[in-house]
Amino acid sequence: MNIDMIRAAQKRLRGHARVTPLMSSPFLDEIAGRRLFVKPEGLQHTGSFKYRGARNAIAALDDETRARGVIAFSSGNHAQGVALAAAEHSVAAVIVMPSDAPRLKIGNTRALGAEVVLYDRANEDRDALGARLAAERELTLVKPFDEPLVIAGQGTVGLEIATQAAEQGYADGDVLVPCGGGGLISGVALALAAEAPGMHVRPVEPEGFDDVARSQAVGEVQRNARLSGSLCDAIITPQPGDLTWPVIDLHCGPGLVVTEDECLKAMALAFTRLKIVIEPGAAVALAAALFHRDRVEGDVVTVIASGGNVDADVFVHALERFAK
Amino acid sequence: MNIDMIRAAQKRLRGHARVTPLMSSPFLDEIAGRRLFVKPEGLQHTGSFKYRGARNAIAALDDETRARGVIAFSSGNHAQGVALAAAEHSVAAVIVMPSDAPRLKIGNTRALGAEVVLYDRANEDRDALGARLAAERELTLVKPFDEPLVIAGQGTVGLEIATQAAEQGYADGDVLVPCGGGGLISGVALALAAEAPGMHVRPVEPEGFDDVARSQAVGEVQRNARLSGSLCDAIITPQPGDLTWPVIDLHCGPGLVVTEDECLKAMALAFTRLKIVIEPGAAVALAAALFHRDRVEGDVVTVIASGGNVDADVFVHALERFAK
Repeated sequence: MNIDMIRAAQKRLRGHARVTPLMSSPFLDEIAGRRLFVKPEGLQHTGSFKYRGARNAIAALDDETRARGVIAFSSGNHAQGVALAAAEHSVAAVIVMPSDAPRLKIGNTRALGAEVVLYDRANEDRDALGARLAAERELTLVKPFDEPLVIAGQGTVGLEIATQAAEQGYADGDVLVPCGGGGLISGVALALAAEAPGMHVRPVEPEGFDDVARSQAVGEVQRNARLSGSLCDAIITPQPGDLTWPVIDLHCGPGLVVTEDECLKAMALAFTRLKIVIEPGAAVALAAALFHRDRVEGDVVTVIASGGNVDADVFVHALERFAK
Repeated sequence: MNIDMIRAAQKRLRGHARVTPLMSSPFLDEIAGRRLFVKPEGLQHTGSFKYRGARNAIAALDDETRARGVIAFSSGNHAQGVALAAAEHSVAAVIVMPSDAPRLKIGNTRALGAEVVLYDRANEDRDALGARLAAERELTLVKPFDEPLVIAGQGTVGLEIATQAAEQGYADGDVLVPCGGGGLISGVALALAAEAPGMHVRPVEPEGFDDVARSQAVGEVQRNARLSGSLCDAIITPQPGDLTWPVIDLHCGPGLVVTEDECLKAMALAFTRLKIVIEPGAAVALAAALFHRDRVEGDVVTVIASGGNVDADVFVHALERFAK
């Protein structure tokens, strides 16, 4: 993994992935106690940053391999990214999804033309299931995070942050990133280490699923005790990845942990102040910047809001509780 | 009014107004029956395009005039645009707002540092009230739409559409624009007449408040019978403006009219498919593209979603009814 792969991904994605804006609001600055910038990847195609990595990985396959089709396992955001990128290349996509994934994500993945195979998140091994299907049908597995081309695609978010921060007149401060398997944060950390080394990348996770923060604290990979039961479905993974963990360990500052209520409150504030939709798991970084300001360093903080694929009832719940 | 004023506004706004993206979704294309692009001005500072015109008008004042302060009358979006632009120039702003404006807009305007004066929309003449306050305090009136510098600022939306449409590979089709007093549509129409003359600008209004469509139909200015009682508060004005009407009459195609329910449904679809917040009055153009497709011309349609300042209870209502 290196910066050249991320720059190559940026070229490959040009004209396909959206360059998302870097947003701010004086009202959010006040709550955060410093300047706060939000990178809203919910505005990306398929509603999350995952399209970047999926498109980069599928575009990089040789024609013959790609023509046989791809397979992915995902709670929903990677699923949609792979489904759209496969459809854009006119190749088949099989997506293995947990049966408790949000209805919206399952429905969208199907509507984008993919074949969806559901599994039980608590009792089945999605990696084994994915590997078996891939072998049977000669499909190429597009891993959700532990794959260099995927990490490189997600890293383009970091290149954009470096450029847009410079336009806003800053090149330092904490960069808070929602963290599941670590594909986004490791790509962003590599990009910023090269392009804006004054910026300090830190993972954010929901309470009870803080495998990365605990891994950082003890210096080796820790697992989550539970793998379901969180509103933050998008970023619940067993443990950091084999490729992503060394990057996190080397490049990232201490992890932050937020509650589900803080995520819902951040979603309500993003609705009111930025007019964007953020899903719970994607709101952890904004929640940390707003409600854990004493743990954040610098005069300016950048947060990634990594996706917006939230069912209406959850969003209504956030607004009912925190926007009225 | 001419294209040079709009280009000058674009220079003046550079680094201040956000260049909003041009968004799309295959799911919305399918409903619209053609390619559909959305320009989400809710992502602009203060949550609507109004910041563009306000900032342009205030930036263009001579220093001495500006230092005495500005005044504006507005149901809320122009209010916030003027309040922020005045605060950015460190000058006072007095905003005359109808007492039935959304709480969020009144609260935001005050929080941006402006002095808010409320009036009764049905029984008081806001123009007379504004003129009196302006005279008493030597404030410069920043009109919401019938002012060349304001129209020029709003026209920068049109310049961006021309550029972004070219990037997407198109230069024609209907461009549907939410229309109140006509500041946005006349600026956009002038910009596109110069930069993308194959595009066909058309106003969209809510049922019962279709003064512009009726004015177009008979060839002279018509008034609305009512001035309140619509969810689409942002675009309810008595009649097209003295400066905006001739531009609309000359450059724009026939107006479209949508129902409030269609606006709410469009808001729910924008939540689900684009992850953006649109307010009811700003959703009229998207509603027309989605639900009146037989009245729209061309293989591609561009709609402006002009703002996102909606109270949470109205947004929840839209989701409860149309996103579950």
